[in-house]
Amino acid sequence: MKVLIVHAHPEPQSFTTSMQHCAVRTLEAQGHEVMVSDLYAMNWNPVASEADFGMRRNADYLVYALEQRENVAAQAIAPDIAAELEKLLACDLVIFSFPLFWCSVPAIMKGWIDRVMVSGKVYGGLRFYDRGGMRGKRAMLAYTCGGRDFMFGPDAVHGEMDLMLRHMLRGTLGYAGFEVLPSFVAYHVPYIANEERVAMLERYADTLAKLDQLQPLAFPTLDDFDSEMRPRVLAEQLGEQD
Amino acid sequence: MKVLIVHAHPEPQSFTTSMQHCAVRTLEAQGHEVMVSDLYAMNWNPVASEADFGMRRNADYLVYALEQRENVAAQAIAPDIAAELEKLLACDLVIFSFPLFWCSVPAIMKGWIDRVMVSGKVYGGLRFYDRGGMRGKRAMLAYTCGGRDFMFGPDAVHGEMDLMLRHMLRGTLGYAGFEVLPSFVAYHVPYIANEERVAMLERYADTLAKLDQLQPLAFPTLDDFDSEMRPRVLAEQLGEQD
Repeated sequence: MKVLIVHAHPEPQSFTTSMQHCAVRTLEAQGHEVMVSDLYAMNWNPVASEADFGMRRNADYLVYALEQRENVAAQAIAPDIAAELEKLLACDLVIFSFPLFWCSVPAIMKGWIDRVMVSGKVYGGLRFYDRGGMRGKRAMLAYTCGGRDFMFGPDAVHGEMDLMLRHMLRGTLGYAGFEVLPSFVAYHVPYIANEERVAMLERYADTLAKLDQLQPLAFPTLDDFDSEMRPRVLAEQLGEQD
Repeated sequence: MKVLIVHAHPEPQSFTTSMQHCAVRTLEAQGHEVMVSDLYAMNWNPVASEADFGMRRNADYLVYALEQRENVAAQAIAPDIAAELEKLLACDLVIFSFPLFWCSVPAIMKGWIDRVMVSGKVYGGLRFYDRGGMRGKRAMLAYTCGGRDFMFGPDAVHGEMDLMLRHMLRGTLGYAGFEVLPSFVAYHVPYIANEERVAMLERYADTLAKLDQLQPLAFPTLDDFDSEMRPRVLAEQLGEQD
């Protein structure tokens, strides 16, 4: 298996970084090939802009997704994007490794998603969810947060964590066609003792060693929707009323 | 009323930018003072890093939120952050104006949130939701997207849009203490005719002229949770079982 770890943390000694190192060790020990995109170390540019395009379909008005499609096809996309896209297309599993910033990924990682998950390859037209460009690949979030586990859940103060991350789990990874594995969440990290951190790393390594035993998240199948993306059942009911 | 519009779109002629101009016109015509932070025009740096801090509480290990608190208190936070924080603290209403990128804000705007919504002022300790630092202020998302309105809803292909945006509506704005107004969403923008766009701008202006009539979103009150953030009802039940 080829694995891409997209990692972002502003402190190279962070526990999140230890988790990333743990993932590399564990996966390589299993015989997998691991590529790491360490976005802070790479000084990754997160800003989607006209500078990303070596040619322009429309030089007067920027439609970012359109120019992505055209520039990837013409091999004119910015070299930093092309290099990451090559890793993404080559891998069987992507792990996003990050500290939770405002219930989402840090901006530098959001900019990897905005710029690298290009229209035309990753999604486009009616290619999303189970027809998305990334089908056949798996993806997983592995993140740290300051909150405690009991603060997340149906009756908890912040509700369910997976709902907070729905824009990533469903709106990004599921939409792109990935089989999305359950997230690995390290809670309360800034406040816990070293032995608890060691136990978390062991739990993470154990999870990574048994990925095939994880039950992927469920998302819609486009079979349930018509070509306009209206629910088929509803469309049939409306038809009967004509 | 003082209004801050945080705006991000890579194309200055975009419909999203027209919406932003419409908001400025409408709100100024009502006598409000409007500030605009146009992040692409400002060449805003979205990357939270050690470069944001003029002094360090801990120079050997970066805890971003800790250094935010210390540097704001010591007036040593980076000047670009200080300028935006001053606008944020001065305003009564913040409007986030953006095109939906991967069911969230573009990375350049995520980096405004990561860097400007500082620990110590915006949130911190047990100050969140109805005790958040931004209580007394209102916030609103105003965004464009390519999808059609019927693609979002309880039985729709993508589920409810407000669940996709939960990390922003609840995890960011609600958490910070804002009264969060319903989002203004302009659907299917890349594909619609000019007269539909004009009608959307009129609907947006009408919405902005009647903000007081909007019903804010509901979020938890910390009164329902104990000092550890466990639900009080549950805590009482557990107590009875002792």
